[in-house]
Amino acid sequence: MNLRCNCIKTRSKPIHPKLIQDIKILKSRPHCPNVEIIVSVKGNEVCLNPKALWVKMIVNSFFKKQMNFSEEKADV
Amino acid sequence: MNLRCNCIKTRSKPIHPKLIQDIKILKSRPHCPNVEIIVSVKGNEVCLNPKALWVKMIVNSFFKKQMNFSEEKADV
Repeated sequence: MNLRCNCIKTRSKPIHPKLIQDIKILKSRPHCPNVEIIVSVKGNEVCLNPKALWVKMIVNSFFKKQMNFSEEKADV
Repeated sequence: MNLRCNCIKTRSKPIHPKLIQDIKILKSRPHCPNVEIIVSVKGNEVCLNPKALWVKMIVNSFFKKQMNFSEEKADV
């Protein structure tokens, strides 16, 4: 029974971080109890399992890289 | 001139982290040189400035919180 989550299933095979164009993290909410991670790869949206270690690593490195890119001049 | 970025302008006034439902981070890409951060607040999408310190803090805490929620049983 899909409680209107975005992700019905998650991809098990790791994705090369360079292929990821964006990452969306959705926190659990009334109509969907799951934390959901959706990435865009070559224009397609792919759901990843937030509990998988490779997903944590990919999301972490993507997040750090994008936020660091902006660090050279931090606007306070 | 909008090079087809998603964000024309970014919100300067800080948002309470609890109001954020999801966060999307888009890396710079051919048609948009900017790293973009889009959050959903009460069903509305709001662009944030990735260089602003308060944005970094909010994104960081959201990211950590959502990923940690899934840490109690990391699937390797």
